Amino acid sequence: MGGVLQGIRVLDLTRVLAGPFCTLQLADMGAEVIKIERPQFGDDTHFFGPFKNGASGYFIMLNRGKKGITLDFKKPQAVEIFKEMVKQADVVVENFKPGVMDKLGIGYAELKKINPRIIYAAISGFGQYGPYWERPGYDILAQAMGGLMSITGFPDNPPTRVGSSVGDLSAGMYGALAIMMALFSRERTGKGQLVDVALMDSIFSFCETNVVRYTMGGVTPGRVGSRHPLSAPFDIYQAKDGYVVIAVANESLMAKLFNLMDRPELHKDPRFETDAKRSEHDQELKAVIEAWLADYTVEQAVAAMLAQGVPSSPVFTIPQVCNDPHLAAREMLVEIEHPVAGKVLIPGNPMKLSETPAAVSGTAPTLGQHNREVLASLLGYDADRVTKLERNGII
Amino acid sequence: MGGVLQGIRVLDLTRVLAGPFCTLQLADMGAEVIKIERPQFGDDTHFFGPFKNGASGYFIMLNRGKKGITLDFKKPQAVEIFKEMVKQADVVVENFKPGVMDKLGIGYAELKKINPRIIYAAISGFGQYGPYWERPGYDILAQAMGGLMSITGFPDNPPTRVGSSVGDLSAGMYGALAIMMALFSRERTGKGQLVDVALMDSIFSFCETNVVRYTMGGVTPGRVGSRHPLSAPFDIYQAKDGYVVIAVANESLMAKLFNLMDRPELHKDPRFETDAKRSEHDQELKAVIEAWLADYTVEQAVAAMLAQGVPSSPVFTIPQVCNDPHLAAREMLVEIEHPVAGKVLIPGNPMKLSETPAAVSGTAPTLGQHNREVLASLLGYDADRVTKLERNGII
Repeated sequence: MGGVLQGIRVLDLTRVLAGPFCTLQLADMGAEVIKIERPQFGDDTHFFGPFKNGASGYFIMLNRGKKGITLDFKKPQAVEIFKEMVKQADVVVENFKPGVMDKLGIGYAELKKINPRIIYAAISGFGQYGPYWERPGYDILAQAMGGLMSITGFPDNPPTRVGSSVGDLSAGMYGALAIMMALFSRERTGKGQLVDVALMDSIFSFCETNVVRYTMGGVTPGRVGSRHPLSAPFDIYQAKDGYVVIAVANESLMAKLFNLMDRPELHKDPRFETDAKRSEHDQELKAVIEAWLADYTVEQAVAAMLAQGVPSSPVFTIPQVCNDPHLAAREMLVEIEHPVAGKVLIPGNPMKLSETPAAVSGTAPTLGQHNREVLASLLGYDADRVTKLERNGII
Repeated sequence: MGGVLQGIRVLDLTRVLAGPFCTLQLADMGAEVIKIERPQFGDDTHFFGPFKNGASGYFIMLNRGKKGITLDFKKPQAVEIFKEMVKQADVVVENFKPGVMDKLGIGYAELKKINPRIIYAAISGFGQYGPYWERPGYDILAQAMGGLMSITGFPDNPPTRVGSSVGDLSAGMYGALAIMMALFSRERTGKGQLVDVALMDSIFSFCETNVVRYTMGGVTPGRVGSRHPLSAPFDIYQAKDGYVVIAVANESLMAKLFNLMDRPELHKDPRFETDAKRSEHDQELKAVIEAWLADYTVEQAVAAMLAQGVPSSPVFTIPQVCNDPHLAAREMLVEIEHPVAGKVLIPGNPMKLSETPAAVSGTAPTLGQHNREVLASLLGYDADRVTKLERNGII
């Protein structure tokens, strides 16, 4: 059947996380993604753990299903080869510091002369314009300047970085979505365009309604830990062997939970009789609930609450979620075979399409693995010519 | 010029956050999004603050640029009207509990008979299949079961929910991206399909390489606060009037920072001479840096570090980021005029496309605002017929 993006060729100059996460979405959907790395070293993430037989799990998970070639852009011949490839490509994606591609002579202004249909996506910390455009971009800077750190964590802690790089990930997602918008547009107009996505903008948009709480409500949103700012019990609670989530925001669910706790009288306690009052007496309610939970394992407590229709869940560690049967049923962990690492388990794709499903295909390339194949098929280079390029350090 | 998605009609049955955030991306790009709400009450978020003249900022920010009609699906005539609209639509999006649409007789199996070109996107806590498919879905449950809570926060705190609803947001983004994939596919095949996106899957994918740290490295990733797990100084630090981020992971940047601190000798201190050793002595290094920062405001410290090329930033509160000139230059806050609330500032869209830019257009609809317009233009109903539907509580 082939993927949605079969026949779409992506030249992928991205490194580390935001850019590779963007092009991963395209590769999983069937695009031919050709990752272009520096000869000898390649993407920095080849040196990030975990390692298996010396191959990086970080690199493998983000670059599965992509082809890999090498080009040394400091050599003019490599720049020329890239330009030849652009003539036969649909999308170029890069996450260099803004300005780098222009200095190399392969910025959007140049590439669109070569191929007016090209879609050029640039992902960076602060974007291609605006006062901070030249600043270095790291996930932690975006989480900090975009506002998300200030609202994450407990009130008595400092601002807290999210435990994964959501600045990179959200920008990667906006990048992939914008590329699809541009591809859809090109089906109708025949023209490519420039896509500019910034980590700081992306994190700001991921602060969601906290923004209007300020612009319309005049409030400075603070840190509230894991609890709901307005409802209770809506938080995590300590059980015998771990934490459980309880998410109750109305009286009918509250009644069910108090009944399950065998404490129906608590619903008439003036501290607990409405959601607003429970939120006000949140810590007292938490103490009552945790006293009850002390006799139950997480599994027992969650099962009992769900049986009564009370929204509840365990708080999974990464090993727990990786071994969860639901995640397995949804193919969210996929085994692939890597030429060096062998069989490895990597995350699947959350986009479940009935007719054109994502395929976590093939594996991540070793450095320059597809030099011969790509240069032969795209540019008609024979083996001797490729060998010469290798010998001269062009590729 | 018109948006990318001009001519694409979306019937939007979504409520609260994940679904509306998905269709918001489509509306900003020019799709005609027709939000369908319950008569009288509408989306729950009409009752979520902040309020201006009684209108909800939560609702306005997530539903700008959409049209609003009402339909009471408990009445068979409303179901028939919806089916008539599906014949003239491209996309249906819903975030009900799985099974609800089938019970109403308007699940995907039914709708594709009416219109084989329809793209049907369902966003839910756990997806349309898998052992947990019937469980209630809330952002906090997905953050907990997807693994992200277990790796967010400080080691001596319990697992920590991210301060915004990233479960809803990431699923909304995957939903929008999957819809674009399906639209792109339909340009070629003429056929629609079912899109199934789960909050739990989306959060799991947002744990990024923490997953392979377990599956390939055997590690249980823990909570490390705001610091980098392997590099130092790469964390937030207390200055005179707030926090600053410093992101240094190599020797040349380290030398620049120690020079700026007028403490070049520290780079020869055995505790601080390599990145690995600094990471090991992270707290001692933090004390040294914070002693230096105690004399500087955040603004002074960040300016001094950036001038030397040391990656640094302030940690902005929501009011600070909203008043930042870079965010303004990138049109990430946009003023719109709402019929009830008047002028309000809401977040812009991070997708910056050169030829078909996002337009944060119009405003959010009041409940049933476009009943007459939509029923007239799509189904040819005259004013009398619409009035009768209103009187009978169908719309």
